[in-house]
Amino acid sequence: MTNWVRFTTTDGTPGMGALEGEQIAEYRGSSFAEAVPTGRHLGLAGVRLEAPCTPTKVVALWNNFRALGEKLGKPAPLHPLFLIKPATSVIGTGAAIRRPPRYSGKIVFEGELGIVIGKTCANVSVADAPGFILGYTCVNDVTAAEIIAEDANFPQWTRAKGFDTFSCIGPTINTGLDWASVRVVTVLDGTERQNYPISDMIFSPAEIVSHLSGDMTLYPGDVIAVGTSLGVGSMKDGATVCVSIEGVGELRNTLTA
Amino acid sequence: MTNWVRFTTTDGTPGMGALEGEQIAEYRGSSFAEAVPTGRHLGLAGVRLEAPCTPTKVVALWNNFRALGEKLGKPAPLHPLFLIKPATSVIGTGAAIRRPPRYSGKIVFEGELGIVIGKTCANVSVADAPGFILGYTCVNDVTAAEIIAEDANFPQWTRAKGFDTFSCIGPTINTGLDWASVRVVTVLDGTERQNYPISDMIFSPAEIVSHLSGDMTLYPGDVIAVGTSLGVGSMKDGATVCVSIEGVGELRNTLTA
Repeated sequence: MTNWVRFTTTDGTPGMGALEGEQIAEYRGSSFAEAVPTGRHLGLAGVRLEAPCTPTKVVALWNNFRALGEKLGKPAPLHPLFLIKPATSVIGTGAAIRRPPRYSGKIVFEGELGIVIGKTCANVSVADAPGFILGYTCVNDVTAAEIIAEDANFPQWTRAKGFDTFSCIGPTINTGLDWASVRVVTVLDGTERQNYPISDMIFSPAEIVSHLSGDMTLYPGDVIAVGTSLGVGSMKDGATVCVSIEGVGELRNTLTA
Repeated sequence: MTNWVRFTTTDGTPGMGALEGEQIAEYRGSSFAEAVPTGRHLGLAGVRLEAPCTPTKVVALWNNFRALGEKLGKPAPLHPLFLIKPATSVIGTGAAIRRPPRYSGKIVFEGELGIVIGKTCANVSVADAPGFILGYTCVNDVTAAEIIAEDANFPQWTRAKGFDTFSCIGPTINTGLDWASVRVVTVLDGTERQNYPISDMIFSPAEIVSHLSGDMTLYPGDVIAVGTSLGVGSMKDGATVCVSIEGVGELRNTLTA
């Protein structure tokens, strides 16, 4: 099991490596799959963590947890329901979620598990899908909630969720996470707001990757945010949201006006 | 006015240039904005045209033409309504639209104007927006129509339109198109199916770029498909669709099973 990270050093140099306690074992390579250790170790305190991958797209699922679906009275879908958040929406832990200059409404946090793709895949079976998953991360799928239903004829999921900085991802990619045994915990300014078992998912990671790989080619570093469950809520300007999954770490971001 | 193209030579080398009749004046550079002529000319017949740009995302608008909105009884929106089609959906003229292996339903063509972004832009005004537009192209915004309403609670626009090969773009980027004076013409297997004036748009290109640049950062090469009008229809396997705009050229693609 490895906890992959990407980081920037104090002199602005980008790097990648494996987090080992308070140290990062530096690696070099065009992807985590081909990375080799440089032998150098850096202190975690001396670098700035970035999003641990650089997705070409973030695929965000809707209605994929039984508890939330039941609360909203929505039957389980037959195929994962999703929208695409652009690469421009991605930030890492510690980076600011920026309120869009032209939007003054409610902004909502959604703590989620993220699947990180490891190898290019198209039309893979459920049985083969795990081989295309690099690992798992935390996602805060931020949403400008008042935009969704602004037009009666066209729900604006992409616009509401696609703003720059609205896909918080990190802090690490855990390559060996036993997702069925852990929980997503979301804390807003010190108060726990979400704490749900990932095993309550309707479509499992292998099913999701299999289905989505039939809808579009997935690339290494692409992230699938698997949907949220009970407890989502709005965050005021200045609020800090921490999404954590045991084994992945704490993804912490502050909303700034 | 330039008609930018990208192409591949018979030995597989990618290139870019300005189309001048049956010749391509080759250019070199990391973008069209910085391209310089190499002095070499190639015959159009000796190369394969590719999509004229390499978008990081395709933003596809819905309900942006008055005639179609009136026919469907949909009022004009207050903000452009859109979804994102991934980069993996892009093909150029002459390339095959591939039926998704897991989908046997109706596939629909939609002839559209495409705006090609020339410079990175975020939160630009309507007055400044034209300076961020490189030019205009043709788009066939292909749609697996039966997927859209498959789930009663979540219209699947992204999934229906995001399949690999479902964004046909080209053949050129016209940097000086007077869009308000030309029409989109779509021909299915030799029969004209769409022929509508671009001036019937609800949001103009400058308004679209201004609005969308407030929703997400737009990058050079990104394409905005501005929506379609009357006459969309389904295409059988083996059918060829040609979308043309005077000054841009003919975008021709065949649906293959």
